[in-house]
Amino acid sequence: MCRWLAYSGSPILIEGLLYKPEHSLIDQSRHARMGVDTTNGDGFGVGWYGSRPGREATLFRGVGPAWGDVNLRELAGSVSSPLFLAHIRASTGTPVQQSNCHPFRFGSWLWVHNGSIRSFPQLKRELVMAVRPDLYPYLIGSTDSEVMFHLALTFGLQDDPVAAVECMVGFVESVGRSYGVPDPVQMTVATTDGDRVWAFRYSSEGDSRTLYFSTAVSALRELYPENANLSRLSDETRIVVSEPLGELTGAWQPVPESSYGIVRKGNDMLGDFHPRLP
Amino acid sequence: MCRWLAYSGSPILIEGLLYKPEHSLIDQSRHARMGVDTTNGDGFGVGWYGSRPGREATLFRGVGPAWGDVNLRELAGSVSSPLFLAHIRASTGTPVQQSNCHPFRFGSWLWVHNGSIRSFPQLKRELVMAVRPDLYPYLIGSTDSEVMFHLALTFGLQDDPVAAVECMVGFVESVGRSYGVPDPVQMTVATTDGDRVWAFRYSSEGDSRTLYFSTAVSALRELYPENANLSRLSDETRIVVSEPLGELTGAWQPVPESSYGIVRKGNDMLGDFHPRLP
Amino acid sequence: MCRWLAYSGSPILIEGLLYKPEHSLIDQSRHARMGVDTTNGDGFGVGWYGSRPGREATLFRGVGPAWGDVNLRELAGSVSSPLFLAHIRASTGTPVQQSNCHPFRFGSWLWVHNGSIRSFPQLKRELVMAVRPDLYPYLIGSTDSEVMFHLALTFGLQDDPVAAVECMVGFVESVGRSYGVPDPVQMTVATTDGDRVWAFRYSSEGDSRTLYFSTAVSALRELYPENANLSRLSDETRIVVSEPLGELTGAWQPVPESSYGIVRKGNDMLGDFHPRLP
Amino acid sequence: MCRWLAYSGSPILIEGLLYKPEHSLIDQSRHARMGVDTTNGDGFGVGWYGSRPGREATLFRGVGPAWGDVNLRELAGSVSSPLFLAHIRASTGTPVQQSNCHPFRFGSWLWVHNGSIRSFPQLKRELVMAVRPDLYPYLIGSTDSEVMFHLALTFGLQDDPVAAVECMVGFVESVGRSYGVPDPVQMTVATTDGDRVWAFRYSSEGDSRTLYFSTAVSALRELYPENANLSRLSDETRIVVSEPLGELTGAWQPVPESSYGIVRKGNDMLGDFHPRLP
Repeated sequence: MCRWLAYSGSPILIEGLLYKPEHSLIDQSRHARMGVDTTNGDGFGVGWYGSRPGREATLFRGVGPAWGDVNLRELAGSVSSPLFLAHIRASTGTPVQQSNCHPFRFGSWLWVHNGSIRSFPQLKRELVMAVRPDLYPYLIGSTDSEVMFHLALTFGLQDDPVAAVECMVGFVESVGRSYGVPDPVQMTVATTDGDRVWAFRYSSEGDSRTLYFSTAVSALRELYPENANLSRLSDETRIVVSEPLGELTGAWQPVPESSYGIVRKGNDMLGDFHPRLP
Repeated sequence: MCRWLAYSGSPILIEGLLYKPEHSLIDQSRHARMGVDTTNGDGFGVGWYGSRPGREATLFRGVGPAWGDVNLRELAGSVSSPLFLAHIRASTGTPVQQSNCHPFRFGSWLWVHNGSIRSFPQLKRELVMAVRPDLYPYLIGSTDSEVMFHLALTFGLQDDPVAAVECMVGFVESVGRSYGVPDPVQMTVATTDGDRVWAFRYSSEGDSRTLYFSTAVSALRELYPENANLSRLSDETRIVVSEPLGELTGAWQPVPESSYGIVRKGNDMLGDFHPRLP
Repeated sequence: MCRWLAYSGSPILIEGLLYKPEHSLIDQSRHARMGVDTTNGDGFGVGWYGSRPGREATLFRGVGPAWGDVNLRELAGSVSSPLFLAHIRASTGTPVQQSNCHPFRFGSWLWVHNGSIRSFPQLKRELVMAVRPDLYPYLIGSTDSEVMFHLALTFGLQDDPVAAVECMVGFVESVGRSYGVPDPVQMTVATTDGDRVWAFRYSSEGDSRTLYFSTAVSALRELYPENANLSRLSDETRIVVSEPLGELTGAWQPVPESSYGIVRKGNDMLGDFHPRLP
Repeated sequence: MCRWLAYSGSPILIEGLLYKPEHSLIDQSRHARMGVDTTNGDGFGVGWYGSRPGREATLFRGVGPAWGDVNLRELAGSVSSPLFLAHIRASTGTPVQQSNCHPFRFGSWLWVHNGSIRSFPQLKRELVMAVRPDLYPYLIGSTDSEVMFHLALTFGLQDDPVAAVECMVGFVESVGRSYGVPDPVQMTVATTDGDRVWAFRYSSEGDSRTLYFSTAVSALRELYPENANLSRLSDETRIVVSEPLGELTGAWQPVPESSYGIVRKGNDMLGDFHPRLP
């Protein structure tokens, strides 16, 4: 089932969102409230920018439950980043292995996903064969999430992410139709090139996994009551999460059904998501 | 926190209790109902008799969550045993590692435990020092559970298990008292020599982790409605569990506070548990 | 690079070949003598028959080095089988994960492989596309070995194993040719349906990984000098190995280049292996 | 058996010593030349300073072989540090688990060790009981290496490291004598407080595991022929290693038997190591 979060803004320690909040991502690995299951213990991953030159992310993924991973705790307390994605996994059928942990990476891009493709074993061959042949060797694992990423890359993610993801969804839905699979797509997705973050919330059935964004940096300030540095955070700071990290009234706004958001310098934006055929 | 089960009777496939029932031990690894936490994903273990000559158990322990372990599923579907203990772990502070998984083994004996010793880091040195020196090298891990086992061995578990466990508890409580630690002991325990099984339910505070035993083999027959072989099960068959594997009315009886039970050929027995000083 | 062994004959404890001999498979995981590298520490697996009804194998695979796996040691000392395959892995590029460990399984069939497909990332898409669509969902991992198995299944492994493997190799070589990849296939393979065992030794370059078979049960008797039971072993007993388990003169015979062998009741046979186009 | 390295000097990427050199530490995990065994695949660890305020190290330890760890490769390519210790493990009997991986940490101190205490299971209880009671709870694993560290802490490592380690060795040797164990201590050790690094080479039998130090920063410059930044490295730069990372003539000097070295600002020093009784 999975839960994920995306952070963009002033550099902060990763533990600031993974461990510190009342309902942190680590808490959600054992006590998720808004997902299919309370437990997300089938692996985890974090991809962060800022430690390498240019826009290249560093990835850290583990196959054990996030709540018990000592290395993750160590790293989260020592890595500071202006942009990172983190994900905790609940497998929807594919093996628990590092190559099936999110975020997935291609070049400077990262991708996380919550949801699934219905009847994926039945549709997989056709979907995989539509991945551009030069991208095919980069399919390392066996998840639907990774295939969705590579289809989006095939349809031009690096040039126009919104259109590419709309094409990916449209394509998966058409393949589903041809196999008699109803409502094939269930997703919230975040993807980033290390500069901007695109978030999507959509499902074929119109009842999507939850997704929220933080309203203003004031939300972050109240997440860190003891941290005087927060006054230095820029107003650009934005968090996108599967479920809120705390219960601060008004701090979290739901992303509407069939929507996408772009987090970037200047004004972020929210728009309607329309699957289209490629 | 942990959950465990003990089986004694006609040989059955281990999956019969680990996977098949409605609220199997594997289900309890993610959705425990009567414990401190719903998740018991910090490792697991099974010890079974019958595969080796004499009374020697075979151990299989893993550090990942039980629900996702493919090898466990394979083995459970191929190993048949007349006596086995199985355990799923929720760490109370010590590392997640194979040497901290139950069952613990010494000679032909196995031991599983649900609960903890309060303020264990503070009491540990004194408790470990009281383990008989020739037994000390067999302390492989770092749990309170394993120390309790070796103290029980020190106090004569192999000769008189009930008296030995009473002494172990009495000793731990006295050490706790000397360090100002209130109500040090919280436990349900099962231990076996491959022939009989002893189960204990006790806590210093008089509010112990749950423990149940099956009333009659009829409980098993209804757990396996599709299995014609059940008519061959002997009336000796007995299951002891942290929480019931199903909701069959009358099939499960709670073990009373401060009690122990002995599962053996002929009449099983239930008695009062009285900690004593060694 | 890998090393493997296949056993067929009277039931023996798996440890008899995995641990006991002077140059056991476990020794080969750290000190292989005839392979590309001395270390084969990227996972392991054992598939054995006899524990389940019919001809269904039980699989046990781990991602850590075989030499340190405590569970493997336990199982090997308690599982007795008349037919088993065991494999220790040295990755040729694909991730170390359980789904990439051999033996691979399909129905009652098992498959182990030592070697590789040259330039596999470049050829993979075309090879995978040739796997029969109904078999495609059974490709769980990302190895060339598993793809070779599924191509062999596609070409009729379950009906005529030798012809199917010859077609598989012929097909891979033809795809290699079309991509300008010289000498694509390097292999020793064992596959079994739980009754007979087929072993293959072939490489496009005519310089194949080593493969040996035991000459007679007398070889086994000398591997177990302390075991009086060996007199009960049938003359059907046969071991096929990547490299000999001991240094007994005359006990091991090399399988010739471009050959296959069939281990079965009655006379085993050795024949010439000729890749053919499907 | 193990291999380790210590780096002190201008900040460099950890991969610069772990992966890049001809005979890097990762290469030594599979092809060590000067140790007891060629394989050191029973876990690994890195502790580095500079990522946290003050002198606190960040630890990353894994239980799998270092050569295959994807996370280690990622981190090594993104973490830059002026002082770090790295270790690859070959177990001398204790379990393979994260709590048994080096470096061990206490406060701002790190400790790595190559070698063993002979007959450790026999001596362990007495050695552990000599650890200062308030330090006892910090013994997390089960290795001789960790016990040696805590004995050194007991004898004043944080005040006078050389004297403390001399006392630790003297004590272990005296306990060994009382148990009739000849030549109990075999060691090379590095320990650091984040500012200076102490290295030791000693064995009771006078035939110690190998240890080398780099003669001058010129050695580093020739390890990085393609890296123009090396001209910025300070002359303070020093590497201490179990075995040389390359074959540059004159770049590596053996640490003599029964010696210790101190790496620090200003002149490093080399002195005689004399075990003493505490």
